[in-house]
Parts: sequence; structure tokens; C-alpha cells
Amino acid sequence: MLLNKCKTGLRPTLLVDSVKLNNELGTRVLIASETFQHTGSFKFRAAYNVALSSSAPHLVTASSGNFGQALAYACQLTGKKCTVVMPETSTKSKIEAVEGFGGEIRLVDVGVKSRGEWLLDVLIELGTEVESVSPYDDERVIEGNSTLADELVNYKDDFDSVIVPIGGGGLSAGLIEGFKRNGVDVKVFGAEPKLGNDAAQSLNKGEIVSNEKEPATIADGARTLSVGKHNFPILKSGLTEILEVEEDEIVAAMRLLFMQANLKCEPTGALSLAALMANKERFEHKKPLVIVSGGNVDAAQYAKLIATD
Amino acid sequence: MLLNKCKTGLRPTLLVDSVKLNNELGTRVLIASETFQHTGSFKFRAAYNVALSSSAPHLVTASSGNFGQALAYACQLTGKKCTVVMPETSTKSKIEAVEGFGGEIRLVDVGVKSRGEWLLDVLIELGTEVESVSPYDDERVIEGNSTLADELVNYKDDFDSVIVPIGGGGLSAGLIEGFKRNGVDVKVFGAEPKLGNDAAQSLNKGEIVSNEKEPATIADGARTLSVGKHNFPILKSGLTEILEVEEDEIVAAMRLLFMQANLKCEPTGALSLAALMANKERFEHKKPLVIVSGGNVDAAQYAKLIATD
Repeated sequence: MLLNKCKTGLRPTLLVDSVKLNNELGTRVLIASETFQHTGSFKFRAAYNVALSSSAPHLVTASSGNFGQALAYACQLTGKKCTVVMPETSTKSKIEAVEGFGGEIRLVDVGVKSRGEWLLDVLIELGTEVESVSPYDDERVIEGNSTLADELVNYKDDFDSVIVPIGGGGLSAGLIEGFKRNGVDVKVFGAEPKLGNDAAQSLNKGEIVSNEKEPATIADGARTLSVGKHNFPILKSGLTEILEVEEDEIVAAMRLLFMQANLKCEPTGALSLAALMANKERFEHKKPLVIVSGGNVDAAQYAKLIATD
Repeated sequence: MLLNKCKTGLRPTLLVDSVKLNNELGTRVLIASETFQHTGSFKFRAAYNVALSSSAPHLVTASSGNFGQALAYACQLTGKKCTVVMPETSTKSKIEAVEGFGGEIRLVDVGVKSRGEWLLDVLIELGTEVESVSPYDDERVIEGNSTLADELVNYKDDFDSVIVPIGGGGLSAGLIEGFKRNGVDVKVFGAEPKLGNDAAQSLNKGEIVSNEKEPATIADGARTLSVGKHNFPILKSGLTEILEVEEDEIVAAMRLLFMQANLKCEPTGALSLAALMANKERFEHKKPLVIVSGGNVDAAQYAKLIATD
């Protein structure tokens, strides 16, 4: 196969080193973009690993969108059925994408009850042949995401710290585990919206803290209630720090990626560059690499955000 | 160097094979994107080859923008001075980019006289240490652009026809020469805006036909008066056909690349996919590869174009 160079059928991450972006930032930053991964985000790494590992013929998940389409495509590739429970507020492009990969969608009102509660209802309805998959809280998810670290270690001389968007903590936990497995010492920083800073609070308190309701950040991949139980011990021991990001900083980072790196990314994907921009002095003598975790965003929303000055 | 894997210091083209895009089109298309090439377009391939080959300490060019910033960066890398003659109507992002790479800009009114005439004025003013470089009509430009074919032949089983945007004809001529040098038989189609179809007219007539003035297409990289003298014989013998594209088809292709492939591209870069979309039946039993030649476009213009339904 042409583009599937990894043993796992994944597409390699795109490394971008833009002189224009570096000039604008006044510092060199390396980007690892997952926007060209199958289904447009890193989530396919996890979903494909789960679909290959599971013996169930029908997988169900609750997802704000990216894991949903990733699991739908992974199920299509492995001959399984897929049902995705999504909030009514999910972007149109994410809904259409799940359907495009043959996934069945259940749109739910997360104001009435949580995604988890909705998921239980659907599981009871669908019966025994079905397996429920967490988008972030599952060892197979962490293992799938760790393949990104396997790729990045090939360039280990070019960076010494990684900034990664954090929602449920599946990608950051995967990176920490992957770097450790490869024996590579890299500082891993999480980048989290201040509006939903449960991960930062959890690390401070030493136990998992939950948001009362889904936070209203534009970074829809980080609208999780809390980090996963499987991820928390890994984050606790392996994460250097969580950097909290304002909403307007996310927009500024999206715009900069568009203008100076020709990179279309979704709000959640820009969290890492936003964290770098807000903490430049911290990375002045470091070689930062920022993970752009995904690129799926509606045209109308994107147009509005990049046209903001 | 991390990303400069080619001997020449170029960045490899990005191959994209998007299932979402294929589903939407109803046919499989492979994309080779030059939007992450240094300076954001294929033009760096040509500019760097010229800068490495020239013994002059100061290079001057007339360019609507992409060749300008490519030459400015190539000169910065090779320790030369660079002056770029640009139309006043050039996009803000392209002007800033040339300046960002240390290039000097002369903005001119192409309604008063042609870029070529303006260029002569500047050359006379700057004196003898200066060499004038054509963005498309120069053997070193063709040779530089042919490096894209050197990369693509590694995937020769995955495509049998290539669609490439055509302005001055430098990229299409380079591809034809490059495929020939590698002994690979591929059909090369040009994609040209109907508003400035001088290349199609030239092929029909068997001699170079010029537009009377710069055509008002949104594909600003194709606002050339005519194809280059060095390119024409190559195009005449090597180009299968030129496909003419309407302005609204360019916008639709840009939007599709944004939505289904997470690819930000400039109007000129979308010519090739637009040509495919308008000629689907022609490529039904073929394996088309479309070249997305560059990604540099202003945020305001882009936002307006992708938000169009």
C-alpha cells in the first residue's frame, strides 16, 4: 500500500518545520500533525488498535466526533458494526463523517444526562453482541496512541519536550508510555483549555477531579468530564506539567498555523501551539515539538475563526 | 537535517489518499501536495536550483508572489541579495512573506505596463551585478521542478495520469522532463483557468498565444501572459491535453480539499482537482494523481471562499 507505511496500517505523522512560523514566533518549533491521519485525527491510532483487538462484532462508543469517525472507519476495515453516541451539538462535518464510514449515529442531549448514561441506555437496547469502547480510557487506546511516540523517536535529536492537547488523557498517556518503552527521555507537557481544566486540577490534587458538566470550550475534543482512570496514574508519574490555555489563545494559534504553516487544524489541535505561545519563556532554551492532534472542523466555524484579527 | 530528506535540501511532497475525499468524489484520487514545501509552494524547487546554479550575488525576479518568496528564501540560504517586482494587487500574505525572507519588494502597477517592462526598469537601475530570473521560463527552473517527478516515480504503480496546474508551464514542463528522465510513462494533463486559457490556445494553434492582459482569475499563480519559450516545446510534445476550469469549479475544489482532506490550498493549487471534478468520466478507469501546487492564501480571502455553499 502506498501510504500505509507503518506495520499497523496507520499513516505516518506529518512533521512540519516552517521557517515562516519560526520567524513569527521568534523561536523554533517542530510540529507533528495528525491532521492527515486516517479520518483526520490521531484517534484512528487508538480505534484501529481496539477494532483489531476486540472479538465483538459490534462496537459502540460515546464520542464528540473524532473517535466516533475513527472507530467507524476502523470497524469498516475490520468488518464490524459500529454505533456512535454523539451530543446533538456535534459539528455537522463530524456527524457526516461517521455516517460516511458506515457508522450508525445516536444523537443525544447531554444537558439531560451524561454521555455515559446515554451510552448505557444504548448498550442495554443493543444486547450482548456489543462491546462498549471508551475513546480515551482503555489500555488498547493508550497502546494505539503510543504508536505516535514510536514514530517520533526516529527524530529524537530534534526535540527535547513535547506539548500535547489533553482531554481524556489518552494521547498524552500513550506518548508517555511510548517514549518510555523506547527508552527516550522527553518532557511531556499537557495543553488544556482553562475553561475545562479538570486534568490540571487532578494533577494538583493527586486524584481525579471531574468537571460538573461538559465545559463550553471551543476545543470540542477536550470537553471531557475528567481524565480516564487508566490514564491518570500514567499522567501523574509521567507528565511534567499541564499548561492551561485561554479560548482566544486557541484561536490565535489556529490562525498562525493557517497563515505561517499552511496547516488547517481544529481548535483542539491548536491547544499545543497555543500553550507554547503563552509560555514562550519556558521553552526558550528547549527544543519543543507540538502535537496537532486533528484537523476536522466545519467550514463555517473555521472561516469565522481564521478571519478574526 | 530533520525534514530535508532530499539531497537538494527540499522537503518531500506530501502524498494524501483521503477515503473521505474518494467517497465524496466517487472515485479514487491521489494528491501530491506541495503546500508544505519550503515557502509553501513547489516554486522553491525551482528557486533553490537557480540560486545554487547562479554566480550572481543579487537575483531579481518579477512574480505574483510564490516564486518571489521562494527566491527570497533561496537567496537567504545561499547568501545572495534578492529583489522581487510584484503587482500592487498581490495578496498581503505573499508580500509579507517575501519581506520575511529578507527580500526587497518593488510594488508596480501592471495596468500601466507589464511586469516584464517594470522588471527591465529595475534591472537598469540596479546595474551589472544583478541577474534576472524568470519564475517559469528558464532551464534551471524546469530542472528544479523536475525533482517532483523524481519523488513521484517512487509510487509509479499507484497512478497512471497526473493533473497539474498550468500558468507559465514551468511545473508541467518539469514533470514531463522528470518522468521522461526516469523512464516512466505517465499521461500529464494541464489544468488552466478558462479565464486565462492561453496555454490551451497555444497547444491548439501550435505556437505560443498570449493573453492581452493578465487574466482576472482567482488562481493568481496562473495570471501569466503566456507559457514560457523554454516550456512550450516540452508541453507541445509531452502534454496529453489541457483541461480548462471555471472559476466556481476552483472554489468548489478548494472547499472539498478543506472539508474532505484537511488540506489548505490556494486557488491555483486547486486547479488540478477542479479539472478532475469537471472531467470525472475521463478519469473513470484511470488512476489520477492531482498536484496541489501551493497553499499560500490570505485568511480573509480563504475564509470567504470556503464558507461559500
